[in-house]
Amino acid sequence: AAHGARKMEDYGQFLALLASTLLVGFVSVILSLVWVFHYREGLSWDGSPGEFNWHPVLIITGFVFIQGIAIIVYRLPWTWNCSKLLMKFIHAGLNTIAMILAIVSMVAVFEFHNAKNIPNMYSLHSWIGLTAVIFYSLQLLLGFAVFLLPFAPAHLRVVLMPIHVYSGLTIFATVIATALMGITEKLIFSLKNPAYSASPPEATLVNCLGLLLVLFGSLILWMASRPHWKRPPAENTKILRPIAATPEGTEVESTMINSSNAGKSDLRINT
Amino acid sequence: AAHGARKMEDYGQFLALLASTLLVGFVSVILSLVWVFHYREGLSWDGSPGEFNWHPVLIITGFVFIQGIAIIVYRLPWTWNCSKLLMKFIHAGLNTIAMILAIVSMVAVFEFHNAKNIPNMYSLHSWIGLTAVIFYSLQLLLGFAVFLLPFAPAHLRVVLMPIHVYSGLTIFATVIATALMGITEKLIFSLKNPAYSASPPEATLVNCLGLLLVLFGSLILWMASRPHWKRPPAENTKILRPIAATPEGTEVESTMINSSNAGKSDLRINT
Repeated sequence: AAHGARKMEDYGQFLALLASTLLVGFVSVILSLVWVFHYREGLSWDGSPGEFNWHPVLIITGFVFIQGIAIIVYRLPWTWNCSKLLMKFIHAGLNTIAMILAIVSMVAVFEFHNAKNIPNMYSLHSWIGLTAVIFYSLQLLLGFAVFLLPFAPAHLRVVLMPIHVYSGLTIFATVIATALMGITEKLIFSLKNPAYSASPPEATLVNCLGLLLVLFGSLILWMASRPHWKRPPAENTKILRPIAATPEGTEVESTMINSSNAGKSDLRINT
Repeated sequence: AAHGARKMEDYGQFLALLASTLLVGFVSVILSLVWVFHYREGLSWDGSPGEFNWHPVLIITGFVFIQGIAIIVYRLPWTWNCSKLLMKFIHAGLNTIAMILAIVSMVAVFEFHNAKNIPNMYSLHSWIGLTAVIFYSLQLLLGFAVFLLPFAPAHLRVVLMPIHVYSGLTIFATVIATALMGITEKLIFSLKNPAYSASPPEATLVNCLGLLLVLFGSLILWMASRPHWKRPPAENTKILRPIAATPEGTEVESTMINSSNAGKSDLRINT
């Protein structure tokens, strides 16, 4: 009974954190829209500042919020009865949406710069941001080839899983750092009279947005790195909350073909 | 023999990564000095831009490089024969030095701003930077009280260790993100003719410095998060390279008084 109570308490803690994370992410997206519509030129696709404005909105929606959800999607306890394969498709799908939004948001900046004869790719923000998008795309491709397609041998997956987890979290943190640089640039460039240093309401609002991004990232990293909140290995999918921690990357992955457990859980979800 | 060969290979890999990390950190410090002495006004303490320049130099030296070393100090295999208590003093000592340098570097900015009538604490960089310094100081205090002083009961240490590790790594990543924002601000404000957007040599040099900071952070996080590179628990200090991974935070800490193992290793190092 005490064991069960501890499990319920742990489950409640996870739900509270998840709700806070979703709230912080949701408020961040709203603040980016308030920034763009209330203080800036709104959204358009005509080479004007309204086209630039897609950049913060799509980055915060896609590259921060959706990527964050993609990272913790295996942690949701009510998905532990779903097949691992289905969850992999959701993980890969959310990351693909995030990548597309990130690329569209970059196109918006390039088109805006070109229309206004502003040089491209001179800032540290652009250097690190482009590097992050390239690594993110490689990570997605490699993840698809190794963990989703059924060709990679099990030992390769065991070797690559800790690297996949590490690069995913490091890219995510780098994306947030890049967003903070972008916010800094944009506020300095666009606030002129009063300047950023005079702390007009727009500066305060967007600074708060930056703080929320850091908070969102910290919450995602906390949930992703607690070993007892990991999806249990395939053998235990019927037990809802195992206490035993599984060391990172030791789980032999279930996939389309080469795991009997994956086959079983696929059957379960199909029936 | 195959087991031993794998251990040696793993050890070699660790040393290669450590050497790369030290090199990247060292080059970052050098680049900050080149920036300040070759392109800017050098260093002074008189309210002039030379006083401001202590800020990037001390942050990169203390809050990035020394903090990074403090994080991985338990990972150095040749220290595994030293007492855990000694290593804790080194860990706490390096973090204390980093904190002092971070605070001095903040004083330099405040004095420079006040001398030039520039407002303080208006930018996202300053908001997140000050938050990071406050959390870092709390982390240091709490770590000292719980893990170094002999009063905390073992179960409290077991509960707090994963939180200590998580906050340490999250603060470290936040510090690097803040440094990138600071670089962005400083390049925009100080490059006027030619501007940052014209990519003068100073901009390229400092962008490269920013990339190196991201690389340094990524290397430290990789070394800190590999379970097989952790210091083995006190029982095994004589075995140099155990393969078995110890789950984060389960090790019962050795300290000044309340652990017989700590006592033993203290004796070993004193004789």
